[in-house]
Amino acid sequence: MYDVLIIGLGAAGYTAAIYAARYKLSVFIVGAEEGGMGMTAVEVGNWPGDIDVKGPDLMERFRQHALSFGDAVSHRLSHVKSVERVPDGTFVLHLDGGGTVQGRSVIFAMGSYKRHLGVPGEEEFSGKGVTYCATCDAFFYRGKDVAVIGGGDSAVEGAAITAQVANKVYLIHRRGEFRAEPYWVDEVRRKKNVEFVLERTVVEIVGEQAVRAVRLDKEWNGAQEIPVAGVFIEVGSVPATDLAKDMGCVLDERAFLRVDAGMRTSLEGVFGAGDVSNGSNHFAQFTTAAGEGAIAANSAFAYLQSRSVEGSMSGG
Amino acid sequence: MYDVLIIGLGAAGYTAAIYAARYKLSVFIVGAEEGGMGMTAVEVGNWPGDIDVKGPDLMERFRQHALSFGDAVSHRLSHVKSVERVPDGTFVLHLDGGGTVQGRSVIFAMGSYKRHLGVPGEEEFSGKGVTYCATCDAFFYRGKDVAVIGGGDSAVEGAAITAQVANKVYLIHRRGEFRAEPYWVDEVRRKKNVEFVLERTVVEIVGEQAVRAVRLDKEWNGAQEIPVAGVFIEVGSVPATDLAKDMGCVLDERAFLRVDAGMRTSLEGVFGAGDVSNGSNHFAQFTTAAGEGAIAANSAFAYLQSRSVEGSMSGG
Repeated sequence: MYDVLIIGLGAAGYTAAIYAARYKLSVFIVGAEEGGMGMTAVEVGNWPGDIDVKGPDLMERFRQHALSFGDAVSHRLSHVKSVERVPDGTFVLHLDGGGTVQGRSVIFAMGSYKRHLGVPGEEEFSGKGVTYCATCDAFFYRGKDVAVIGGGDSAVEGAAITAQVANKVYLIHRRGEFRAEPYWVDEVRRKKNVEFVLERTVVEIVGEQAVRAVRLDKEWNGAQEIPVAGVFIEVGSVPATDLAKDMGCVLDERAFLRVDAGMRTSLEGVFGAGDVSNGSNHFAQFTTAAGEGAIAANSAFAYLQSRSVEGSMSGG
Repeated sequence: MYDVLIIGLGAAGYTAAIYAARYKLSVFIVGAEEGGMGMTAVEVGNWPGDIDVKGPDLMERFRQHALSFGDAVSHRLSHVKSVERVPDGTFVLHLDGGGTVQGRSVIFAMGSYKRHLGVPGEEEFSGKGVTYCATCDAFFYRGKDVAVIGGGDSAVEGAAITAQVANKVYLIHRRGEFRAEPYWVDEVRRKKNVEFVLERTVVEIVGEQAVRAVRLDKEWNGAQEIPVAGVFIEVGSVPATDLAKDMGCVLDERAFLRVDAGMRTSLEGVFGAGDVSNGSNHFAQFTTAAGEGAIAANSAFAYLQSRSVEGSMSGG
C-alpha cells in the first residue's frame, strides 16, 4: 500500500513525486511513456534558470531527481488501464498485463495528447508521412518539402525547427494571425525556406504508399494541392482525462479535469496536476506543471494526515 | 514607455520577465533587493531537475536568464515608493530618489517579509542577536547557543542548518507538532545538539548590549529563561502588499493580493504573482512562484494585445 499513486511521467508527475518524497510519503509513479509533452520541446528557453536546455534533457533531470529518494519512490513504465476506488477509501491501479497496485491517494498527471485533424488520409498515412510532433520528427525529412499545420506554439516552433533541415516548409494555418509566442513567430519569419499558407484549411492528405500532398479548401498560389513528403499536424492537444472520467471525476466545460486551488478533483483523495487539469488558467508550461505538481503533493499530504488522524481516533 | 513593469526580483518576478521577453514585450524589472525569499534557502531540494542547489545560486540563474534577453529587459535595484495609475490607463512607478518609470501594465511580485513576534526586546536587539533568517545568519553563531522560534519550514530547516555550526539550538514552538516538511523535521530530530522546547511561547528577549536570553511564558526544564546569544525568529511571513493596496487592489481575507486564475488583480492591467498573491492555494514555493510568474506574463501579454487592438480601432 503506497501513500500516493501518481499517474504520468511528465513535469507535473515528477514534481509531485519529488514533493511527496520530501513529505516522507511512499510514492508509486507510473506512465506509458517517459517525459510527456516535455519531450517534444527541442529548445525550451522558458524554464527559469536554464537559458538553454532541451526538453528531453530537462525531463531526464526531473526523472533523476524524483528517483534520487531511493525506496521512497517506485517507478514503473506501464499503461494504466483503470483506477478503482475501493469501499474503504483506498485506490487500486489496474496495469497492463494484469498487475495491480494499491494506494491511499491518487494524483492524475497524464498530460494531454495531440489533437487530430479528422480529414481523409490522416489515419491512412499516419506514420507514413503524417506525424504529430514536428520537433520530434523533423530530422527524418532532411532536404524534403513538408507541411506544418497549426498556429500555436508547437506549430510555429515546429516550423522553425523543421526549416533548419527540410528543403521547404509550408506553415498552414486557418487564420491570418498566430497565437504562438512572438519569439517563435519572429524566428520562423526569419527563415527563407518557410512559406506562410494562411487562411487555408487542409481538407485531405493525399498519397499512394506515403504522403504526396495536402489538399486545401481554397486555392493558394494558383493550386489547391501542395506537394509534400511530410505533414506535421500541430493543432493543439486534448487532456488525457479518460482514467479520471471513468472514475467519476468532474471535468470542466472544456473537458479538462476540474481541480480547485489545491488541485483537488471532485473525488476525495484524488488530485490532478499539469496539462490534464484546468489549473493555471489552462496555461500548459513546464513552470505551471511543476507548480501544480507541488500543490497536488502538498494537498495529498494534508489529506493523508487528516485521514490518519481520523483513523487513529476511530481506532482508539 | 515599457510594456510591462515588474516589481520584485524573486522567482516570480524573474520568471515573469523571462516570459514577457519571449513575448517580445519590453520589460522594466525593479526591486529593493535581489532574489527575494529564495535567497534564504541554503539547500533547496525541491526545484525539480536540480537535486542539489543553493537558493542564492538558483536565484542568480533566474536573474541571468532574465537578463539574457539584452535590451528587452531593463533591470534596476531600487525601492519603489508608489505605483500610480495615470488617467490614460498607463502606470508610473515612483522610485526612491525621485525617478519615475512609465509602463502599460504592472506585475506585482514583491513576495513577503518576515513576521515579527512583537515582544519586548525584539526591536531593541534587532541586529544584536535577533535576526529573521536562521539560514542566512547561522554562520555568525558558530559555537554559541541560539534559539530558533517557529514551527514551519523555515524554522525547522533553520534549526537543522544552525545545528551544524552552533553549540546548541533550542527550537521553540508554541505547539506540540510541526507544520514543516517531515523531511526537515526528521533532519532536525537527528541532530544531537537540538533541544525541542514545545508548547512554549517567547514573551521577551532579554539582554544588555546584546541578546542574553529568551524568556518563556511557562517554565521549561525548571527555568523560565533560556540563555542564548542569538534568536532566529521564523514565525511566518506577511505578503508585501503595501504598494498594491495603496493603488486600490483588493486583498483576500488573509491579506494576500487577490488574483484570479489568470493572476489578474481587481485592477485592469495589474497582475500579481508569487508569495504576495493568494494564488497556488497560498503554497509559497519556487515552483509555484515560477508558475504564477509565467501565467501573469501571459495574461499581461493578452491584455496588451487587446489594448492595442482597441487603440488602433479608436485611432482609425
